Amino acid sequence: MARDIEVIARCSESDPGTGHSRPTFSPAWKASRDHVVREAEATGCRTRVDAAGNLHARPAALGWEEPAWLCGSHLDSVPTGGKFDGVVGVVVALELLRAAPWAPVELVVFAEEEGTTFGLGMLGSKAWAGSLGPAELLALRNAGGQDYLHAGAEHGVDPERLAAERLVPGSYRGLVEVHVEQGASMWRAGVPLAVVTAINGRRQFWCALEGTANHAGSTRMEDRRDALAGAAEIIRYLESLGRDLSEDTASTVLTVGRIDVQPNALNVIPGRAAFSIDFRSPSEAVLDRGEERLRARLQKLAAARGLGIDLARTEVLPVVPLDGSVCERLRQAAQRLDLRLPDAASGALHDTAIIAPLVPAAMLFVASRDGVSHNPAEFSRIEDIALAARVLAEAFRP
Amino acid sequence: MARDIEVIARCSESDPGTGHSRPTFSPAWKASRDHVVREAEATGCRTRVDAAGNLHARPAALGWEEPAWLCGSHLDSVPTGGKFDGVVGVVVALELLRAAPWAPVELVVFAEEEGTTFGLGMLGSKAWAGSLGPAELLALRNAGGQDYLHAGAEHGVDPERLAAERLVPGSYRGLVEVHVEQGASMWRAGVPLAVVTAINGRRQFWCALEGTANHAGSTRMEDRRDALAGAAEIIRYLESLGRDLSEDTASTVLTVGRIDVQPNALNVIPGRAAFSIDFRSPSEAVLDRGEERLRARLQKLAAARGLGIDLARTEVLPVVPLDGSVCERLRQAAQRLDLRLPDAASGALHDTAIIAPLVPAAMLFVASRDGVSHNPAEFSRIEDIALAARVLAEAFRP
Repeated sequence: MARDIEVIARCSESDPGTGHSRPTFSPAWKASRDHVVREAEATGCRTRVDAAGNLHARPAALGWEEPAWLCGSHLDSVPTGGKFDGVVGVVVALELLRAAPWAPVELVVFAEEEGTTFGLGMLGSKAWAGSLGPAELLALRNAGGQDYLHAGAEHGVDPERLAAERLVPGSYRGLVEVHVEQGASMWRAGVPLAVVTAINGRRQFWCALEGTANHAGSTRMEDRRDALAGAAEIIRYLESLGRDLSEDTASTVLTVGRIDVQPNALNVIPGRAAFSIDFRSPSEAVLDRGEERLRARLQKLAAARGLGIDLARTEVLPVVPLDGSVCERLRQAAQRLDLRLPDAASGALHDTAIIAPLVPAAMLFVASRDGVSHNPAEFSRIEDIALAARVLAEAFRP
Repeated sequence: MARDIEVIARCSESDPGTGHSRPTFSPAWKASRDHVVREAEATGCRTRVDAAGNLHARPAALGWEEPAWLCGSHLDSVPTGGKFDGVVGVVVALELLRAAPWAPVELVVFAEEEGTTFGLGMLGSKAWAGSLGPAELLALRNAGGQDYLHAGAEHGVDPERLAAERLVPGSYRGLVEVHVEQGASMWRAGVPLAVVTAINGRRQFWCALEGTANHAGSTRMEDRRDALAGAAEIIRYLESLGRDLSEDTASTVLTVGRIDVQPNALNVIPGRAAFSIDFRSPSEAVLDRGEERLRARLQKLAAARGLGIDLARTEVLPVVPLDGSVCERLRQAAQRLDLRLPDAASGALHDTAIIAPLVPAAMLFVASRDGVSHNPAEFSRIEDIALAARVLAEAFRP
């Protein structure tokens, strides 16, 4: 697996030190998927690409129609990302095909998980699960202006077969996706592996504050309606709200990641500041309570400054509870290896969230050093990755 | 003067309702300057353009070498600005040439005051005063890539003559620039005119905070080094420092006008936030005290969050005290018209700040409705502008 990880990293469009870039359908992405195909076929597997662009591989002895465990993740990366995000789940599945050919496992490589190539994440799993159709895929374009269907045509995407090849609920025994945690909790606690029992719900908002752009030299402090100063007060409040809500539910988080200021000139008081709010929790109750609190407080803070406010909710993704019996199966397999798997909630979204409504699903997290991810410094220990493979082999033992 | 203001506004590159744009050396700017030349010559004046691109006009009876009062401002505007910024000072000087031809007045239209065309303000006055030479002017380029010398060549700019035509200290009796306040204080207090006794000093800083870019979903609140949250705390502090310092010296102001966040993506914790700090006061003591306080506090706030901080001072412009005897002359002239002129400090910079070290200088502020400036809604009353012209005619009476 260490070798697989290195080979896949070397496929990337990367300059030394600047990280790894494998946008979906790029030559780098294709080279990494070709490596997986070669390795799977070398160990006697059959492979196919479904109409949504996802790669599947099974031991030759395991017919495509037989119930199996789906196991895999993604090979596409954010720009200048690390070596482990997505890749870990793929190489663990590959290792099962090589080292446990008796296990009823189907490797899957989902296409376009990150969302940085076509502007929307988990496209391969969504198209396979039927939640995105050809019309939607035709509307999503990459930086070169190509839509998902045309850019993917030479990589197996085929809108004609999309309906026929849709994932059939109940056709699999289950799905287990191994993935790096992308947070610091496990690494800090010295935990190599954890069972993910839920994927956080997410609510996103776009908040625009309207003040008055004016001369930074001649407008007295008391005469200002400074949109950026208002945004600063709100960003501070949202951080404290996030800390407050996470005291009960540790993986609850609130983030302001993007801000656009107008005119954004050093000698003009900002007349407009608009920013994103990303709010995630494994608890719908916390999401409801938090949204209510933030709506009330933001109105109040803006009004106190005489700022106009437009707070729009731009996305609602519900909490996705993962399958209790699959989680328990993973715990028991670990126990047989004298390992205790603590529970975790996933703050990040994964293809598992898309497949979970159709197939009993769970995830296994591998510790991320210092929680660094989407960054060239991303790192997970090969011993921990090997342990994940051992737990899965044990869990999938017939 | 009302007609002059309208004619100059109509010269501007403007769509209805979007404001007035007269970038230096543009056709719109040239048309407005041509109007001033035509009006001055129609009333029997001689005109010339100096090697720095500034227009001068004197009554024919007043030789170029005789001591005179400089009076004027600028015609260039910020993009989509108002009708009054700069223009008011020019049309008052024009009115003096027409209505008080006996006054020893030289109208001056300084080129490129705003700094939005070539990236640096008060170029015409700086080049005339000798604080900018041909090499510096050659390095300043407009959006079309043309430098000041080449773009200005057809409008009178001539690097060969620049040294010879430099402003000679003491060659003028004084300078009075009439300008709109661009703040709300006078309008609110019902004051039509005020004497500017000082132009605020300005210190600018660029503050960069370095945190860790990380996944917005999977990084717990306590594991974050969020550069934008740190910037928000600092922006709030700077606003309160500005309010605090302005309690004694009302025109002291602190502004964060520009912020750049990286990667500025809604699902990534900001790893870097850099912002400008613009700090102005009519008191060097307040500037010293404020700078000391902000330096200490910013270091502390960044350190408390584990953020790296780089605080660079990018500009220091000292307070420019204006000439006491010229100010007094304006007050006494007003008194003879039964008008009391209160004192003011200018928060904005003006060409007067450049000329003041060489020629006894003062300014007369005209009230700005609600302090709005650099904005199509900019407005000053024609009665107040007329009053400024009457005060100047009285002040310049031989």
